Amino acid sequence: MDITFLGTGSAYPSPNRCASSLIFRNDGECWMFDCGEGTQIQLQRSIIRAGRITKVFITHLHGDHLYGLPGFLNTISFGTIEERDPIELYGPTGLRRYVRTSMDVSRSQLNYPLIINELQITDDMLPEDWTDWQSNYESTEPQHPSEQPGRTITKDENGIWNIFESETFIVQAAPLKHRVPTFGYVVREKDQPGSLNAKHLKDLGVPAGPLYGKLKKGESITTPDGTVVRPEDAVGPPKRGRKIAFLWDTHDASLAAPLLQDVDVMVHEATMENEMKEKCVLNGHSTPEMAGEFARSVCAKKLIITHFSQRYKTSSDNEEDEPTTTKLLLQAKEAFQSDNVVAAADLLTVSIPTLSLR
Amino acid sequence: MDITFLGTGSAYPSPNRCASSLIFRNDGECWMFDCGEGTQIQLQRSIIRAGRITKVFITHLHGDHLYGLPGFLNTISFGTIEERDPIELYGPTGLRRYVRTSMDVSRSQLNYPLIINELQITDDMLPEDWTDWQSNYESTEPQHPSEQPGRTITKDENGIWNIFESETFIVQAAPLKHRVPTFGYVVREKDQPGSLNAKHLKDLGVPAGPLYGKLKKGESITTPDGTVVRPEDAVGPPKRGRKIAFLWDTHDASLAAPLLQDVDVMVHEATMENEMKEKCVLNGHSTPEMAGEFARSVCAKKLIITHFSQRYKTSSDNEEDEPTTTKLLLQAKEAFQSDNVVAAADLLTVSIPTLSLR
Repeated sequence: MDITFLGTGSAYPSPNRCASSLIFRNDGECWMFDCGEGTQIQLQRSIIRAGRITKVFITHLHGDHLYGLPGFLNTISFGTIEERDPIELYGPTGLRRYVRTSMDVSRSQLNYPLIINELQITDDMLPEDWTDWQSNYESTEPQHPSEQPGRTITKDENGIWNIFESETFIVQAAPLKHRVPTFGYVVREKDQPGSLNAKHLKDLGVPAGPLYGKLKKGESITTPDGTVVRPEDAVGPPKRGRKIAFLWDTHDASLAAPLLQDVDVMVHEATMENEMKEKCVLNGHSTPEMAGEFARSVCAKKLIITHFSQRYKTSSDNEEDEPTTTKLLLQAKEAFQSDNVVAAADLLTVSIPTLSLR
Repeated sequence: MDITFLGTGSAYPSPNRCASSLIFRNDGECWMFDCGEGTQIQLQRSIIRAGRITKVFITHLHGDHLYGLPGFLNTISFGTIEERDPIELYGPTGLRRYVRTSMDVSRSQLNYPLIINELQITDDMLPEDWTDWQSNYESTEPQHPSEQPGRTITKDENGIWNIFESETFIVQAAPLKHRVPTFGYVVREKDQPGSLNAKHLKDLGVPAGPLYGKLKKGESITTPDGTVVRPEDAVGPPKRGRKIAFLWDTHDASLAAPLLQDVDVMVHEATMENEMKEKCVLNGHSTPEMAGEFARSVCAKKLIITHFSQRYKTSSDNEEDEPTTTKLLLQAKEAFQSDNVVAAADLLTVSIPTLSLR
């Protein structure tokens, strides 16, 4: 399981930092979170095989998180005629309208089924100036010819958007405060049974096959010679499911806190240094101190900050006196009261190790 | 007067070649032609000041010529609060719908008036499979809050779209054959009066001021001491207006030929080498031979080929045995029967020298 950052800049893409996007991988799964302009170029520079991506989650519809999506959806269709697995999109109300219009004006032909799921925004997510625009965010466009019907996911009684549950993962979202309706996504891996100790089982005379499965499910078995083997004798400790949160643009993520207790890895934006907090919050963003304090408040184990103002260079391309992300990193560590903080950089991959329950 | 290529790749942007875009500059004027994804990143790498751009012309609505536009329109609004000059867009029917939807879902705030002019497509520009999509390309979206009404430009009796005439330029468009409705743009500079020979006028005793203006307009004047000065005595030869054509995706540009006679610089796509003509034309594109023969047929003086398949590397980043644009350049020269051909490359600037009529 790992995270590869494709773009870590705020507001717009630059030659130093692309606009927001990252890839979450686990075994065969490959999911994208946000897709700013230039994401497909970064994918070509990265270790990720773009054709493996099956899901794209969009936090909000600002251009630096969204405008790379139509190009990405087009490009993965090039070069192969054969049909491939569906791609599922998830994002706030308005995503269907944007994707359908972009694909329709360009007459984009796709070699895969496209499923657009919308997280229905609620009135309390709208900023005060919302009605000035009189935007109607519901799509009235016809479906794309390659589109299959998507779901509209609504808020449950606990204020959570339950996106889906698979054999391995539960994915949920909660609203973050920002200048436009914004979601934070939480991916929760289910606890997994431990590994079988095959050598020990062989020594005990257990033949490979259905008996192995019973042990893994937690049942005792009896070997052909009458020995009773209990699961704790042959199965390693269960693996605790990991929890990863993807929180981009926000000046206040507290509504998502109930989903975030003891999160193993929290990706959280930190756009500008602490000294610029007033301007930062006015723009709907967080400082490293805000990110660190929030991560600490939910007992996060590791914090990764990203979405840096383009003023901050990485140390490697830094000329004298230019501000760098090292400053933001130190400020986040101080507030988090831990050194377990990483400043993201374009094309950086961060591993998320397996956790034992015992 | 010069042209700076921002992106010279076809189909999608790559780390080697961005998607289609170029900048045409003349004195203070700065116009963009096409705006594929990543154009704003290339602008930051180039000698162009993005804030100087006042007009954007879109040839057709395929994503690799269009998907960088919303990000560009957003980014030039960042960082300054003061109002700036309007930006005028020109492109086929559907451009309003795309731009309005993209800006609306992102709630993009602009610090300049935006004017979207559409070139109305005609039934004979539609490909055979057009009705399969039942697209309705007219915009029904509300105007952006910063939008000022644009014009809808229709075909004249000669099959030409007359876009505008300024003091310096006449800009026109004609349809090109491609998989979707596509326009080629022709920028025609008006003939300009020659430069005044200030030293000679001083020797003749002509005081600087209104008399200079009369001479420049072609009128004779009388100096304070009674000498008659004719314009041909003091004004250099008039400058012939230059004609530049921007022709992207097409497998047949012949409908634009009446606009292109004796064009000084023709930018024409050449996506794949001559040996791949069948595939190239099937995709609606041209080979270097097609570009060279067409340029020769209208007596073009200089040909610049661009829009290269991503398979072609520039010679500078070429590893052994990889195909390069040098092959395409040689093929274009052979068909054009002239060496006055340039293979475009990202960030290449090509000067267009002043021409004398005498």
